Amino acid sequence: MANWEAYLEDHQEEIDQDLIQLLSIPSVSTSPQHTADVQRAAQWVAARLGQAGGEHVQILETGGHPAVYGDWLHAEGELTVLIYGHYDVQPAEPLELWTTDPFMPRVEGDLIFARGASDMKGNLLLPIAACEALLKTEGKLPVNVKFLFEGEEEIGSPSLAHFMTNHKDLLACDMMASADSGQLSLDEPAIEVGLRGLCAVQVDVRSSGVDLHSGMAGGLVHNAAQALVEILASLKGLDGRVTVTGFYNEVADITPEERQMMDRFPVTDTQLKTMFQVDELFGEPGFTPVERNWVRPTLDINGLWAGFQGTGVKTVIPAEAHAKITCRLVPNQTPEGVLDKVKDYILKHAPSQVKVSFTDLPGQGVPYRIPSQHLGLTAVRQALLQVYGVEPLEIRVGASVPVTAMALQILGVYTVPLGMSLDDEHMHAPDEFYRISNFHRGQVAYVLFLTELVGKQQFLEKR
Amino acid sequence: MANWEAYLEDHQEEIDQDLIQLLSIPSVSTSPQHTADVQRAAQWVAARLGQAGGEHVQILETGGHPAVYGDWLHAEGELTVLIYGHYDVQPAEPLELWTTDPFMPRVEGDLIFARGASDMKGNLLLPIAACEALLKTEGKLPVNVKFLFEGEEEIGSPSLAHFMTNHKDLLACDMMASADSGQLSLDEPAIEVGLRGLCAVQVDVRSSGVDLHSGMAGGLVHNAAQALVEILASLKGLDGRVTVTGFYNEVADITPEERQMMDRFPVTDTQLKTMFQVDELFGEPGFTPVERNWVRPTLDINGLWAGFQGTGVKTVIPAEAHAKITCRLVPNQTPEGVLDKVKDYILKHAPSQVKVSFTDLPGQGVPYRIPSQHLGLTAVRQALLQVYGVEPLEIRVGASVPVTAMALQILGVYTVPLGMSLDDEHMHAPDEFYRISNFHRGQVAYVLFLTELVGKQQFLEKR
Repeated sequence: MANWEAYLEDHQEEIDQDLIQLLSIPSVSTSPQHTADVQRAAQWVAARLGQAGGEHVQILETGGHPAVYGDWLHAEGELTVLIYGHYDVQPAEPLELWTTDPFMPRVEGDLIFARGASDMKGNLLLPIAACEALLKTEGKLPVNVKFLFEGEEEIGSPSLAHFMTNHKDLLACDMMASADSGQLSLDEPAIEVGLRGLCAVQVDVRSSGVDLHSGMAGGLVHNAAQALVEILASLKGLDGRVTVTGFYNEVADITPEERQMMDRFPVTDTQLKTMFQVDELFGEPGFTPVERNWVRPTLDINGLWAGFQGTGVKTVIPAEAHAKITCRLVPNQTPEGVLDKVKDYILKHAPSQVKVSFTDLPGQGVPYRIPSQHLGLTAVRQALLQVYGVEPLEIRVGASVPVTAMALQILGVYTVPLGMSLDDEHMHAPDEFYRISNFHRGQVAYVLFLTELVGKQQFLEKR
Repeated sequence: MANWEAYLEDHQEEIDQDLIQLLSIPSVSTSPQHTADVQRAAQWVAARLGQAGGEHVQILETGGHPAVYGDWLHAEGELTVLIYGHYDVQPAEPLELWTTDPFMPRVEGDLIFARGASDMKGNLLLPIAACEALLKTEGKLPVNVKFLFEGEEEIGSPSLAHFMTNHKDLLACDMMASADSGQLSLDEPAIEVGLRGLCAVQVDVRSSGVDLHSGMAGGLVHNAAQALVEILASLKGLDGRVTVTGFYNEVADITPEERQMMDRFPVTDTQLKTMFQVDELFGEPGFTPVERNWVRPTLDINGLWAGFQGTGVKTVIPAEAHAKITCRLVPNQTPEGVLDKVKDYILKHAPSQVKVSFTDLPGQGVPYRIPSQHLGLTAVRQALLQVYGVEPLEIRVGASVPVTAMALQILGVYTVPLGMSLDDEHMHAPDEFYRISNFHRGQVAYVLFLTELVGKQQFLEKR
């Protein structure tokens, strides 16, 4: 048994207690009443990083919630890895659906229940514990490591791009590793090699200066809600295909390798139906569900409102109507390009009797794809193979993680994912939990991952 | 000058003060915090009716806000008229848009500003003052009169049909006269001889058991908001014509007389555009705006809601989406018949991946039409001719007044309209006002109207 491995075994109880401590801090980034808790969590993480042997540990202002930075940079001639995570969490509401207090962590067998357990305070401690074990036993790390933990991921990382740009030198690295990531199951490791991008816009329709009485104006004027539903219905065919002119023009063709990868992904229609609580799947014709989720773009109505929503009847003709729309983007689509097409199409198809305007929404991100042969992926692959005894599956994810695109754009590096969360762990939902067995093997995986990178500088695929 | 006329002149200042008193009571029927005020208004009206010489004055429970009843029934061998009105008002909000307090009446020249001034506390006092002038000077009324003032008109008269049914004998009459009515302008009198009916339904769409993450489920499942907009867009053509199968089947043809009446109606497209604050009118092709408003049915979306409506972006696929729909009905449509057709059409056109259900809404009413030669109309016509010096125009109204259909169905009598409100008086809106000159001539009109009915029993057109 290696010294670091013995260290982890000897100190595992203390490290478990650390996780319980961190989970006890209600660092809900979206709630003003938790601002002090978010600060406290940053201080806790900074202190823990220093205790692990991190150097230059500091709490940095971002304009929003602070970021925690630390490093260990004495591996001369070796690569530098920037490890990313976030210490903020989603709100715990609705509290009545939790079995026990979301900020009083409860252990039940292999599971630890608390808000943030799976997303992602458990994963956040993996690289800290791994580096501590190496530094306390070997006195050094195999490669140079920087840590960046932010406090705004759950509100869309609004300060992060600006912060990264302002601290380009401090954060300079050869690759980023994101601990905000997961595996397929307790037996099946996976590596996320692609994410969809995102663009968002609000459509605002106005039909008259004021809401009108439907007895006086009904049949005489257009209705903002009617115009909006006509506009929205025109954006997609009844078959689920987006009808916006040119929407699919830039979409990358699916390569044979990608198709193989998707065919290998072990999910059945039945599993998807159970997960989404639907009787029938639905989407763009000609593609499998996995293809639709990983490599096909979408257009979704996320919100809709007009007129009277209370109990009973109000015979009003709404003067205005609104919808929020997001598109998930795939290579080689851009948020700007897709938004332009959607807006053009809407303006061309709107009834002449109404005025359509748009409200720009935050939440834009370019699609992200890391080359399969990237050195960091190889290292993660080796680490997971050793921990699980099984070759990890390369997967893509339909969701968007803005930090990956930011790191590529601002720092010029790819992000490799290494975290231990599983999809069934109620992230963002009541009774969120994390698996303690994964917590332990994740620490080992980080040691192995960093060790795999030793002496590999010449193999690095730079952007 | 007749005695009653002199009485009105002599007492006009006191009667004006009565209006100010009644307008000072915030009898907002929809607001629980104003329940005591609604009661107070009922007591005030009952007391005023007694003071005028009304007999059997009583405040009657309806299950909701009370009704005020009173009568004078000593005109043996003469007709009996039931005079209807309501003493409740709409909420005054938004208060910041009022020039002065909505419940501290302000007189400015001919105008009196207050919530309820035009709708309809001003009109409510007309028949009371008229009867008082006759009773105090002649000691009798020309015909038998009953009064019914309700306190729930502004919330859709939910208790009225049941109340009428329970008090059929008390309310028995030869015709109803509604003071909740108006004229075209200060120079142009009008008689409302038809109203549209109404039916209402809420459409509820469910696509999945819970709201879904658009990154995980986007492209894989149907979206309740998307399904709803497709359903709603299918109900009407882009030209404004309702596409629901059979929607227009029962609609009565327009007679040459009706067409003449509508052609005579003095309203221009420009006036309508100004009134509705729109740049362009819109509606069913092949009909004029007046035809569309008076004799063509409509289908309107009154409210719409799904998913996220807050600031920013939430990448949710809504599990449910809702819309409220009302149709304005014309002879010979029925609320049940039209609702059945709309529901059938929706169920046939809904995507198979979603579940559609309906929530029944209150607010149903059959279309109302009083025959032009009805005795009561003749009397109103004569009264208005004398007051204005101009023959009144017969008009129809696109709105619905449930009480007219109720009286026809439950009491078996037609309703003749006699009120003095004008369309520009900001009913239901900030700075509502009423014209004092109309208040004065309305009292005269009621005396003339009742007098016209003397000895006319044999001419009454019963239902």
